[in-house]
Amino acid sequence: DLDQNYMLRLPKSGPLEGTLWSHRGLCIFKMSPYKMNNYFKCSHVCLYSCHAVQESLLSSASGFSNYRGILNWCVVMLVLSNARLFLENIIKYGILVDPIQVVSLFLKDPYSWPAACLIIVSNVFILAALYTERRLAVGTISETTGLILHIFNLSCILVIPAATALTVTSMTSVGGVISLGIYTVLFLKLYSYKDANRWCREIRQAKAKRLTRSYSSVQTHVSYPGNLTHRDMYYFVFAPTLCYQLNFPRSSRIRKRFLMRRLLEMLFLMQLLVGLIQQWMVPTIQNSMKPFQEMDFSRMVERLLKLAVPNHLIWLIFFYWFFHSSLNFMAELLQFGDREFYRDWWNSETVTYFWANWNIPVHKWCLRHFYKPMLRKGTNKFLAQSAVFLVSAFFHEYLVSIPLRMFRLWAFMGMMAQVPLALFVSRFLNGNYGNAAVWISLIIGQPVAVLMYVHDYYVLHYGSSA
Amino acid sequence: DLDQNYMLRLPKSGPLEGTLWSHRGLCIFKMSPYKMNNYFKCSHVCLYSCHAVQESLLSSASGFSNYRGILNWCVVMLVLSNARLFLENIIKYGILVDPIQVVSLFLKDPYSWPAACLIIVSNVFILAALYTERRLAVGTISETTGLILHIFNLSCILVIPAATALTVTSMTSVGGVISLGIYTVLFLKLYSYKDANRWCREIRQAKAKRLTRSYSSVQTHVSYPGNLTHRDMYYFVFAPTLCYQLNFPRSSRIRKRFLMRRLLEMLFLMQLLVGLIQQWMVPTIQNSMKPFQEMDFSRMVERLLKLAVPNHLIWLIFFYWFFHSSLNFMAELLQFGDREFYRDWWNSETVTYFWANWNIPVHKWCLRHFYKPMLRKGTNKFLAQSAVFLVSAFFHEYLVSIPLRMFRLWAFMGMMAQVPLALFVSRFLNGNYGNAAVWISLIIGQPVAVLMYVHDYYVLHYGSSA
Repeated sequence: DLDQNYMLRLPKSGPLEGTLWSHRGLCIFKMSPYKMNNYFKCSHVCLYSCHAVQESLLSSASGFSNYRGILNWCVVMLVLSNARLFLENIIKYGILVDPIQVVSLFLKDPYSWPAACLIIVSNVFILAALYTERRLAVGTISETTGLILHIFNLSCILVIPAATALTVTSMTSVGGVISLGIYTVLFLKLYSYKDANRWCREIRQAKAKRLTRSYSSVQTHVSYPGNLTHRDMYYFVFAPTLCYQLNFPRSSRIRKRFLMRRLLEMLFLMQLLVGLIQQWMVPTIQNSMKPFQEMDFSRMVERLLKLAVPNHLIWLIFFYWFFHSSLNFMAELLQFGDREFYRDWWNSETVTYFWANWNIPVHKWCLRHFYKPMLRKGTNKFLAQSAVFLVSAFFHEYLVSIPLRMFRLWAFMGMMAQVPLALFVSRFLNGNYGNAAVWISLIIGQPVAVLMYVHDYYVLHYGSSA
Repeated sequence: DLDQNYMLRLPKSGPLEGTLWSHRGLCIFKMSPYKMNNYFKCSHVCLYSCHAVQESLLSSASGFSNYRGILNWCVVMLVLSNARLFLENIIKYGILVDPIQVVSLFLKDPYSWPAACLIIVSNVFILAALYTERRLAVGTISETTGLILHIFNLSCILVIPAATALTVTSMTSVGGVISLGIYTVLFLKLYSYKDANRWCREIRQAKAKRLTRSYSSVQTHVSYPGNLTHRDMYYFVFAPTLCYQLNFPRSSRIRKRFLMRRLLEMLFLMQLLVGLIQQWMVPTIQNSMKPFQEMDFSRMVERLLKLAVPNHLIWLIFFYWFFHSSLNFMAELLQFGDREFYRDWWNSETVTYFWANWNIPVHKWCLRHFYKPMLRKGTNKFLAQSAVFLVSAFFHEYLVSIPLRMFRLWAFMGMMAQVPLALFVSRFLNGNYGNAAVWISLIIGQPVAVLMYVHDYYVLHYGSSA
């Protein structure tokens, strides 16, 4: 309020009305009923003199820094501009969402379900790993034989689905991605199973040698080799983790409301993802083909930025759908206690922090079964880190190239580019700038790779590039 | 890091290696060199057992709430999507910015400069107000005669430029807005001049009657009627305030670097504003005419949202250009001390707070010369507040309708709609929701009014509505 009240100290004996010159200019005061001690309330200051020496808020001299309204502004602007994009899309293309069409992504020939068969066959490899471990536990085969059997089994897990996807022509790309994804997860799980059981044998040997007393007094826990059962194996296969251990931490009960919420999220977000891809991604990508064939640079950038928004949105929804809804649903169903499937990657200020925190199951596996064993063997940290990215790049390429039957190394290069990017960001950018750089690399990097593959696929299948 | 270290309290005498069951599963520990008191560092916990009971971060049970990365995400998304809009615009329309074309907005006929003449004529009214006050100060004319003269002078200030703008056909709309704007500012200034001088006379009379001692001891200050000089009058006319007072607070010196920065900002932002209007507003508005003529509702909304972004951006730049750069430039030049031209309206959670803080000179004037005098006469608060909006609505309409020679009351209704909007927001929305509502009303409300006027102007001048 401009009509502020001022307390003025006056002499005890003196006039009760008059004029005062202050730094705020002319001040008229009157005796007021608020007389306290010798202070008089001067309530007319600002009526006659209404200016004071002060800086504008946006001048650095003002020291003002409260811009919390700006976050709301950002949110409002984003919602409004995306609402417009959505409306523009509907006006331009009409409704493109078609749930029936989705089926054709999985099935070319309704009498041949190669992807489903491949997934059923995976039980063979699971049982092979279990039986090998049982033999190793009782000592029927040596550690070396066991290792060879495991390596053979793991190689089959990678090679057989790849060979199937490349040779069986009735397998669609989507079916290929799903079955190869499941096989990759299985590869990582069984690798972890092999390692963890070997460590258990080492401990057993150490105990037997040194005759140390075991502190394991809790009876409900299973100890090696009591874990080598079908039940334990399949619990691990379905559990939302890639790292095997005896006696997973368990939650006390299945919370039915939590389970239902996750299930509804899964179903709703699945529909949303399919709808967004059909309605927003596909037309944008189709419109991008012409500029990319003609190598029209400014239009290419425009298309890239146009694609970046739906692509990023879809990635965010996918993240939530998979890492929050689906994995939590599986965990709740299996009473699996450890729900740390991701950490706060959205605050990451370095590229390394992002990769270490957005996908905790894979990160945990890499750390436990790849990075740390390498460090223990004396590899230096940077080399070990690069090796992790190399393996990750291999699997990215594996999951993209084989289902598309097209080897272009874009996914591989995209992952390997993270190493110099990480070095650059950690050296030159800090705090919010680092965070913004991570976001930019996410928002821009993905559609670049997507467009590369789609362009090449398009050229390969439908026409010749200019 | 997953390989955390745990301190375990062990019995003083006991084995130094063994197995422990904790809530984190199997724990292998070895005697470590970090032995302190009876605590042993257990550094192998997570290698063998790598899961713990914990919730996902996005589950409400986790209690996690650090989403500071989201602000950066918003900024990155806004920058990228606007970069795309900019690029799309350039590809679609090419470069439309044309500084020469701007001249034609001011001049239809290079031999007739009606707006400039009108601005020069304004000196007559300034001097009329000064001479009336001089007469009043020495008592040659009575208070009533003075009031009549002032009312006549102030009426002329509003009527003469309006009549000129409506009759002189060589005056362009932009010239009309500028000259009417200057006259409106002058009206408010001279109204304040009249009131402030009258208050001074009242004080002088009160003093003379009661023979109170004056505390004014500082010699550099001017007291009534010493202020009735041409110099003082023109200082007030050019000062960035609408409220007159004797002895404005002054800054100690002209900071040359500050002055230069503001000047450069003024020049650069002026160019930017003109460029954005030519490149972004004009084509978008032109494309909006067809849907608006055909009353195609979904396309109208799409156009409205498309226009909202450049319109809002231009308004923000205009705000900074006028209220920060230009007014600070004038203030620095005149060593005017009070730089509070705006407060933190971007944080406003109610519509009233926004209107009371985005334009402090006008707000101060309304409070000092309109709202408070009304309250003193016994009007209730809500009525007085509505009256302020009514006067504001009148001036908005005055500044738009007359230069466009078109009376549609959209601006008037836009301002009057703020009263129910303010009631709605203050009753139903709090905190960030209130802030978002204020932003939405700003972002959406303005382009609605702009499109209304442009549509009507277009229909009136170029064609018939469907």
